[in-house]
Amino acid sequence: MAKYCFGIDIGGTTAKCGLFTIGGQLCEKWEIPTRTADSGKMILPDVAETILKKMEEYHLKVIDVIRVGVGVPGPVEYEKNVLFAVNLHWGYTEVSDKLSNLLGGIPVKVGNDANVAALGEMWKGGGEGCNSIIMVTLGTGVGGGIIVDGKIVTGAHGAGGEIGHASIYPDEPMQCKCGNHGCLEQYASATGIVRIGKQVLANIKEPTELREENLSAKSIFDAYKKNDIVAKMIVGRFADCLGYALGIFTTVIGPDAIVIGGGVSKAGAPLVEAVTSSFQRYAFSSCKDTPIVIAKLDNDAGIFGAAKLAIED
Amino acid sequence: MAKYCFGIDIGGTTAKCGLFTIGGQLCEKWEIPTRTADSGKMILPDVAETILKKMEEYHLKVIDVIRVGVGVPGPVEYEKNVLFAVNLHWGYTEVSDKLSNLLGGIPVKVGNDANVAALGEMWKGGGEGCNSIIMVTLGTGVGGGIIVDGKIVTGAHGAGGEIGHASIYPDEPMQCKCGNHGCLEQYASATGIVRIGKQVLANIKEPTELREENLSAKSIFDAYKKNDIVAKMIVGRFADCLGYALGIFTTVIGPDAIVIGGGVSKAGAPLVEAVTSSFQRYAFSSCKDTPIVIAKLDNDAGIFGAAKLAIED
Repeated sequence: MAKYCFGIDIGGTTAKCGLFTIGGQLCEKWEIPTRTADSGKMILPDVAETILKKMEEYHLKVIDVIRVGVGVPGPVEYEKNVLFAVNLHWGYTEVSDKLSNLLGGIPVKVGNDANVAALGEMWKGGGEGCNSIIMVTLGTGVGGGIIVDGKIVTGAHGAGGEIGHASIYPDEPMQCKCGNHGCLEQYASATGIVRIGKQVLANIKEPTELREENLSAKSIFDAYKKNDIVAKMIVGRFADCLGYALGIFTTVIGPDAIVIGGGVSKAGAPLVEAVTSSFQRYAFSSCKDTPIVIAKLDNDAGIFGAAKLAIED
Repeated sequence: MAKYCFGIDIGGTTAKCGLFTIGGQLCEKWEIPTRTADSGKMILPDVAETILKKMEEYHLKVIDVIRVGVGVPGPVEYEKNVLFAVNLHWGYTEVSDKLSNLLGGIPVKVGNDANVAALGEMWKGGGEGCNSIIMVTLGTGVGGGIIVDGKIVTGAHGAGGEIGHASIYPDEPMQCKCGNHGCLEQYASATGIVRIGKQVLANIKEPTELREENLSAKSIFDAYKKNDIVAKMIVGRFADCLGYALGIFTTVIGPDAIVIGGGVSKAGAPLVEAVTSSFQRYAFSSCKDTPIVIAKLDNDAGIFGAAKLAIED
């Protein structure tokens, strides 16, 4: 009986790889470069090669590996095919069939990278023990992953979990890069909080250690921890946007927990406090106590989620 | 092998009942009164009695009935127990075990009535052929039911699909009956559209056939169909609120379709047109083409959904 699986998280720069037992134990993790040249045609052969090499190293035969799970930065259909993946220079790609052929027939399951990371966080990270979560990833943009009853919500056209593009303030004059106005991403991303910071700084005379030149999510939260009044205003506005949006999202699926990941989540406890307080102001009574927690797996969420995808039926 | 199931929809006034084949054919439907006296202790015995009588009539034995599905107006856990049901005068009630005992051991599955109706509409109604839908029921209030991958999203504490209480305009001065401000229900229900109508009438001098005394969802949509300018403004404002909220909801689960039911949905095509046009203004690009359709099963959605619940594993 197969006792192992691989979890692979293919990003634009590197592919993160993990060998797991089907009990969920990480045996080893490593990375290989992602070669995007020639429409990324070497990416899957490279992934296959590193898997086969690792199998040799561990004396694993094809029948010892239950499946390979793969996370890819693009919309995915039927847990098999990627519609496109800009960062990999891919058009429509039959990832599951192609990779499986290169691996002597080991079955391959594919998911969108943000969704797969959410699955990883629910399995072994901030949402451990939960069955349904909303994961929101606050990075350069705002990504999301929705898990209901232990399964990724892919959505029609792969649109499940596209919560960063919920247009929450459609009167916003500035356009989001998706073409809409007032998307959550315009306020709650690392870029968004800096934008809020600039607006606040331009309109306020209170003393502050913040300067427009070196505004970043980190400098803002650092100042916030030191009780800087202006930083408090900026974080307050950011948390207000995010808490408002999360309040609406939770009425849809009633999650067990909300998990916040991505670079901005490094701010930790102060971030959780600010967002929780705003969320509770907006949330429906039955959802008010939904815990808001920080993601735990960092850059490994993808390989854990891909492994979980590989293990489950 | 069992070839039949029952779908029961218990409301505060009547319990609607249906006998179905497991292929989904409705054999017969009927109603019995709901006796809410004495904390509703006769409700389940009455339901059991009518089921057993119907089984006798059709010469069905216990083994001929695969399951009984039941929809109840309250939050439900584990498809078995109801936390409370105000309209039935019930506290915590072990519906599944109690009813099953009264039925000689026929297994019973229980769901919240709004969720069960959504399942029915997806199975045999407006959402037929879909796998995931958002159903929004525009009645005195706004109810909701979310189906993902063919299954009801119950949510923690039964809060899945509580989209009527998404606080979309928290600056609204008037309080919702849930205690929050600016819930979708305050704008998109039958009551909500009348409230919008009063506000518009009070501030406008344009000629109109609408009078404050006889404002209703029906009179407003009737005038709208006759191109009444004021009715157009009222419906425009109502559709704007609903389309905005649906735009946000769709980023969470990326449904195959949005199904609109409830009394207000009787307005039909003009309602769909107004809401679709507003929805497309706010929705994320991948979701813009999500079809918005009117529910088809009317008051039978509950028995169909309960039957579907009974049939599936």
